[in-house]
Amino acid sequence: MQQAAGAPRIGVAGATGYAGAELVSLLLGHPVAQLTQVSSRSQAGRVHREACPGSGCELELTEELDPTRLEVVISTQSSLEAAAQAGSWVDSGAVVIDVSADFRLRDPGLYPKWYGREHPAPELLREAELTVPELELGSRAGRIVALPGCFATAAILAAAPALRSGLVQPSLVVDGKTGISGAGRGAGPAYLFSELDEAVLPYAVAGHRHQPEIQQALSELSQIAVDVTFVPHLVPMTRGICVTCYLPWEGGPALDRVLQEYRLAYGASPFVHLVEAPVPTKLASRTNHTFIHLGSQGSHLVVEAVLDNLGRGAAWQAVQALNWRLGLEATAGIGRRPQWP
Amino acid sequence: MQQAAGAPRIGVAGATGYAGAELVSLLLGHPVAQLTQVSSRSQAGRVHREACPGSGCELELTEELDPTRLEVVISTQSSLEAAAQAGSWVDSGAVVIDVSADFRLRDPGLYPKWYGREHPAPELLREAELTVPELELGSRAGRIVALPGCFATAAILAAAPALRSGLVQPSLVVDGKTGISGAGRGAGPAYLFSELDEAVLPYAVAGHRHQPEIQQALSELSQIAVDVTFVPHLVPMTRGICVTCYLPWEGGPALDRVLQEYRLAYGASPFVHLVEAPVPTKLASRTNHTFIHLGSQGSHLVVEAVLDNLGRGAAWQAVQALNWRLGLEATAGIGRRPQWP
Amino acid sequence: MQQAAGAPRIGVAGATGYAGAELVSLLLGHPVAQLTQVSSRSQAGRVHREACPGSGCELELTEELDPTRLEVVISTQSSLEAAAQAGSWVDSGAVVIDVSADFRLRDPGLYPKWYGREHPAPELLREAELTVPELELGSRAGRIVALPGCFATAAILAAAPALRSGLVQPSLVVDGKTGISGAGRGAGPAYLFSELDEAVLPYAVAGHRHQPEIQQALSELSQIAVDVTFVPHLVPMTRGICVTCYLPWEGGPALDRVLQEYRLAYGASPFVHLVEAPVPTKLASRTNHTFIHLGSQGSHLVVEAVLDNLGRGAAWQAVQALNWRLGLEATAGIGRRPQWP
Amino acid sequence: MQQAAGAPRIGVAGATGYAGAELVSLLLGHPVAQLTQVSSRSQAGRVHREACPGSGCELELTEELDPTRLEVVISTQSSLEAAAQAGSWVDSGAVVIDVSADFRLRDPGLYPKWYGREHPAPELLREAELTVPELELGSRAGRIVALPGCFATAAILAAAPALRSGLVQPSLVVDGKTGISGAGRGAGPAYLFSELDEAVLPYAVAGHRHQPEIQQALSELSQIAVDVTFVPHLVPMTRGICVTCYLPWEGGPALDRVLQEYRLAYGASPFVHLVEAPVPTKLASRTNHTFIHLGSQGSHLVVEAVLDNLGRGAAWQAVQALNWRLGLEATAGIGRRPQWP
Repeated sequence: MQQAAGAPRIGVAGATGYAGAELVSLLLGHPVAQLTQVSSRSQAGRVHREACPGSGCELELTEELDPTRLEVVISTQSSLEAAAQAGSWVDSGAVVIDVSADFRLRDPGLYPKWYGREHPAPELLREAELTVPELELGSRAGRIVALPGCFATAAILAAAPALRSGLVQPSLVVDGKTGISGAGRGAGPAYLFSELDEAVLPYAVAGHRHQPEIQQALSELSQIAVDVTFVPHLVPMTRGICVTCYLPWEGGPALDRVLQEYRLAYGASPFVHLVEAPVPTKLASRTNHTFIHLGSQGSHLVVEAVLDNLGRGAAWQAVQALNWRLGLEATAGIGRRPQWP
Repeated sequence: MQQAAGAPRIGVAGATGYAGAELVSLLLGHPVAQLTQVSSRSQAGRVHREACPGSGCELELTEELDPTRLEVVISTQSSLEAAAQAGSWVDSGAVVIDVSADFRLRDPGLYPKWYGREHPAPELLREAELTVPELELGSRAGRIVALPGCFATAAILAAAPALRSGLVQPSLVVDGKTGISGAGRGAGPAYLFSELDEAVLPYAVAGHRHQPEIQQALSELSQIAVDVTFVPHLVPMTRGICVTCYLPWEGGPALDRVLQEYRLAYGASPFVHLVEAPVPTKLASRTNHTFIHLGSQGSHLVVEAVLDNLGRGAAWQAVQALNWRLGLEATAGIGRRPQWP
Repeated sequence: MQQAAGAPRIGVAGATGYAGAELVSLLLGHPVAQLTQVSSRSQAGRVHREACPGSGCELELTEELDPTRLEVVISTQSSLEAAAQAGSWVDSGAVVIDVSADFRLRDPGLYPKWYGREHPAPELLREAELTVPELELGSRAGRIVALPGCFATAAILAAAPALRSGLVQPSLVVDGKTGISGAGRGAGPAYLFSELDEAVLPYAVAGHRHQPEIQQALSELSQIAVDVTFVPHLVPMTRGICVTCYLPWEGGPALDRVLQEYRLAYGASPFVHLVEAPVPTKLASRTNHTFIHLGSQGSHLVVEAVLDNLGRGAAWQAVQALNWRLGLEATAGIGRRPQWP
Repeated sequence: MQQAAGAPRIGVAGATGYAGAELVSLLLGHPVAQLTQVSSRSQAGRVHREACPGSGCELELTEELDPTRLEVVISTQSSLEAAAQAGSWVDSGAVVIDVSADFRLRDPGLYPKWYGREHPAPELLREAELTVPELELGSRAGRIVALPGCFATAAILAAAPALRSGLVQPSLVVDGKTGISGAGRGAGPAYLFSELDEAVLPYAVAGHRHQPEIQQALSELSQIAVDVTFVPHLVPMTRGICVTCYLPWEGGPALDRVLQEYRLAYGASPFVHLVEAPVPTKLASRTNHTFIHLGSQGSHLVVEAVLDNLGRGAAWQAVQALNWRLGLEATAGIGRRPQWP
């Protein structure tokens, strides 16, 4: 990387999927960062504007990025695609922000189980930090910023303060509900409108890829081994995630104390909001906001978190990480308010 | 009740709500039972056909039913409305099938907490039986057949065989997802289309009325005090419920044994089906079917059950109970197959 | 065809698409007809029950039907697939009911324009009759019963009585709105949930395949050349069609007279209903019903028709045609009442 | 009005409905205008933030605005509410931008027919200009800027260039499809989720309030009396309008010529875009964009226009008019790009 005199130059790898296109749109409106390269294996050669509905980006899609002319690479490619390229990106001196799953898990041994094959660059895992700025998870000096998956982001934000407080047992059930866009622009026939409209569909009951991320992050944050059971469900909406975390505890009297932990963690955040009554996922739609509600029922603390899977769960979170990593204003380019309805 | 020489005469109290109108439609097509009276406080004086979209029922809606000319009263009225009238129905000799919540809880002391006031006829609670035919919960000789709520039906069917097996701990988390029709035809502005479309919304986090029903039924069926934490969520669809039950256990090796309990319980049922992969709620839409899937993840047995909240969760279940109580064929009038999509 | 002593034996060609599977479900519950064969090129060898969600059909899917053992073949195959096989079906003596587009247009010259290639069996077009029983379009003695497409069925039912009355000009605009299931179970990525939810999308603005069917049928029924402009729109729902027909006329005073024509046409029909206020498409869902509303605004008679594209628009209409062609009761197997919501 | 030294002070009357709340959100982010007052009759006394989901506005809602301290009043109140107050606003020297219907129709005689009562301030109608900036409809010097309704905005933008060209007959059919939010935050039980989901519902078949606006604007713009037949339909989505305009003409050869008229009209607009293939309404969601597609079929030119009913159809259009009236940059505060999905 040659030092840029001015605006940091950003390249997006995998720029035509739902998350990639959203990221392009955000970066075009970013006050500081400058989008200079976009890549897409399937659509190389086309102008971005022609490859994505509503895009105003005039850059031509290339097969690969040229990291020597970039300060930052943001990748939204498929699983273990970024990993094979990230070495060259890092070697060129670019900071890598990875929206995909390639650098989330510390233990290389977990990839075959969850992703079906060996990690192509296990030595890079040491360079990577799973990052959640609000929780001080991750390093501002790291060369690879790994972002948690959409469900994992919600679950980590929802459960970490409670677990850190020691007021709950280190064992939680996470029930996830997601909009369909999480399956991506290239999803198969199981994701046709007529298959999923007017229906809730559980999936990955025996285990979902985001489970080990949640477990790793929460264990690190609370300094104790946390047991996580996580089951996701498809819900007939395009965007939005709601996770419901059930944490065993003594009960309601401690609700004020645990709430205090959440206020400490998120009181100064422009993006994470504690709400007195649950809010619908739609309130977070097309923004970087997360809304968290705490309640107590019987033997469980119940924490609900809602966010936009393509927003805080993917593209918007990537810009948040970009701002955080480069020391820019936290809300630069992603300061949009909630809208209703 | 004067004995009918022929077809049992049925009256529906509260015949113009979503569940009531569905019930009228089913009874019009029932091969044995004869719908002879319909009541509605808000719409008395109108012909049913004019009060409900698509109804072909030519009966006039009355303020009250005349139980002396009925063998069976089915009530879908609001909470604690049926209770005030049920005494006269029972005294006339009619069998009462109650779709509302008035006779579900054995303990009169629970009504003020969950329904905001004293039960108007606590002495009748002794006559009532919370009924789930497949589980032999309830009595074929009872004078009041109380049917569990939509969530409770799903949760009881989902968890009972596991709890009876002794293979799981008597403590479960139930995460519910429901279509909006559960709120009824008279729901308020919070249930407008624009408020709920494209959104998941948690509610009743601190406790929902169906929680004590689930707890009572599962405790009775498993002969041990069962602890239940239940949180429901609104999902943008009209019909359908999915409940996800998380039951702590030793783990996967016991999955076959617990599956065996489910086969014993439901193998002969025309309405409850074990599925090898989760199915979407829509497959149960406008039918009396329930689909149950078992899985194991980490420290929990995970049971998913899907049904139609207005089907097995309300009107169709009432006809199932009618057939069961009168000794008719189980599928009479409710034998419809699943349809897709 | 060997004469069956008893129940007519029915085979369904293309039994695993949305329309085909619905048809299988209906035939399993038909009181007279007997489903004895099902075929599917893509799924031959599998049992139907395993190939379609919710199916209870235990027949094995074959590559081709054996028409020598069938009284009736119902085909829901893709365009111009049935045409290539229908000759052998007819030669075996089976009656053919075609849900696809292969025999709708009388003029062989139209197929290249609308279906991209020559009709494979133009000589069979003389054997075929485009059929709408309520309008006495089609012949009860024909060997090939061609059913209009989903939009065309709605438009023909909506506009024919007005055109026959001579009270309107023979020129109409038909604006169609359809649920997504019309695109079929094998639709491509443009029909993913996330692409179509929360959106209306016009298509085929320059001309849609159902336009010539509508034009042919309405011209024949009104004995005058009718000019039809038809534009369809995708709407975010699974089932349902609404067509809005705009017919130029002198104006409102004639509304009673034209309404009288509709009463004559449909007054005795169990399936076509005139309504005083427009009803939503959902009221027709999973039934064979069509609801028609007439209004007048400025210089146009406005006729709205709603039906279920997989119901009266495809599978249920096929059973209606079966009953009609074999002289069975009109509602046999398809007598279901409307349900709400 | 005392001249403001700096930023123009804006008050929003009716600030808690869907359009009002959206407007508040936009004005909070506007680079020049300053939101200083918000009113709401039903919620006076509350802080805006507490009255509207997601609002970050700390202003207290008042019963009435104080126009003496405002440069501009934007009203989104119910029909004929603004009209009764607008006199005092105008007298104070404030510019009035009216999103409601109170000043759209020039002829006071039309209000009783369409709005059920006499116009409360007919003398003000002379001060008002129905305004569509792209078409140079309206005056930059007017004291009351009347904005067309959501359907009317779409129809006027869609049809005006064609009508002005003289290439089509001055008679059009407009078929409208709208998301449910058009009915407002205070809509009644007919707009419950369960009533409208999975359904298309025609309404106002005999005439809708937006018809005379469309007719007035198109007649003025094309200098000829234009005949308009307009029928709207509810579609199961929250935001979005699609209008399909059918204009009789000679046919396809003239398509290039008429397209040229559209390019002249909209080529320089940041908000109105001509598209080569129809786009879904969702592409305009939460923006001020309108996408227009032209096609020809048989005897009609077919123009499709899609926009967001709360965007260009209401709140965003009001900010566009504010910028236009005050001579600010066209995209100030409303420059958001389209997003997908």
